Amino acid sequence: MFAHGCDAFLFIEHIVPKLSVKTKDEILKEKILDGADKLFQKYGLDKTTMEEIAREAGKGKSTLYYYFKSKEEIFDAIIQREKNEFFNYVQEEVSKAPTAVEKLKVFVTIRFKRLKEITNLYNIMITEVKAALNLDTICKPNYRQQYDQKEANIVKSILQYGIVSGEFRVFSESEMDMMVFVFMSAQNGLEMDLIIYDRLDEMLTRLNFFHEIMLSGIRK
Amino acid sequence: MFAHGCDAFLFIEHIVPKLSVKTKDEILKEKILDGADKLFQKYGLDKTTMEEIAREAGKGKSTLYYYFKSKEEIFDAIIQREKNEFFNYVQEEVSKAPTAVEKLKVFVTIRFKRLKEITNLYNIMITEVKAALNLDTICKPNYRQQYDQKEANIVKSILQYGIVSGEFRVFSESEMDMMVFVFMSAQNGLEMDLIIYDRLDEMLTRLNFFHEIMLSGIRK
Repeated sequence: MFAHGCDAFLFIEHIVPKLSVKTKDEILKEKILDGADKLFQKYGLDKTTMEEIAREAGKGKSTLYYYFKSKEEIFDAIIQREKNEFFNYVQEEVSKAPTAVEKLKVFVTIRFKRLKEITNLYNIMITEVKAALNLDTICKPNYRQQYDQKEANIVKSILQYGIVSGEFRVFSESEMDMMVFVFMSAQNGLEMDLIIYDRLDEMLTRLNFFHEIMLSGIRK
Repeated sequence: MFAHGCDAFLFIEHIVPKLSVKTKDEILKEKILDGADKLFQKYGLDKTTMEEIAREAGKGKSTLYYYFKSKEEIFDAIIQREKNEFFNYVQEEVSKAPTAVEKLKVFVTIRFKRLKEITNLYNIMITEVKAALNLDTICKPNYRQQYDQKEANIVKSILQYGIVSGEFRVFSESEMDMMVFVFMSAQNGLEMDLIIYDRLDEMLTRLNFFHEIMLSGIRK
């Protein structure tokens, strides 16, 4: 336990920047990614071609294909780069916060801001993904919202029951709504990861653990 | 508050089944949905045609088109039907549990079992959706897993820091890993809902509320 606990104090070491000299190849790759990123933000993935990406970088198509096999590979590289930069930034900011509670708050707030930026920058691509998922036909947002509301009402009733029965501490009406939203979203997130990671078997243990924590947070 | 609190005791009333006589139209629609459901489970959405759905129901294509405009609309109707049945079942089971904590446990367990069933039944369709999302190229599961692990390590360090500093109660190593997973998945779920519902503005309040609850659950 303590050997692990001590790792927590090594934050500072993790953030020492690696001073490396970039090769010509790396510089050109960066240039390609920068240009492609601009195009993706402006036109989305579907409407951007390898030809346009090459032109934006001021290079021929064959040079571009030497570095990347497809625009999907380029987009993948952009995501990886963005994630690495973001990761270093998070680690740096978290290490500055004085307490664990503050660190957690910084972590969450930075992630939130980034999410907001990304949804703005890649608005067109998000629309493309939603379309690919047939979100408009299959999971009509309105319908999903209606159903989510029905399920949310069950959770709300349970919480209200627990307040009346004295199991839970009293929440205001607006706190109650937030609690329900948070509970359902967290639940959906856990379930989604199950599917993505094919980890259905350990999942019930994890869900129960989550509810233990949430419950000790709201118990009287 | 109490006017709302009392709703919680009305569970039983909600579950009185509506005894309704089905019309011929409704019976035929049900038959179409049953047949289409079989085909979707077996071949997925892409490879199932309206012609096959009509044949499975023992009807002509024009009869089928009278009821449904497309296979997507049929699939939508199947989801809606399944959700309604599931919703009634959940409500019934939840109303039987004696305490709020038990009710919540029933709610979560039933959802989990259903998710497991659905992922088995619609395995092919899930693969189709993953492919449509380009999950294999853009969000390579391995890469996502690696990155998630990096972020998870930040959260783990924060929790360990909080234990050492005396802010949080002590967790075992396996509890700690679950805690981190749960925290990250819940966080991802909240963020995903933000994007789907375009509710970025109220979101920071909700995220903070979520962390307040989680934190009071793990504080010393």
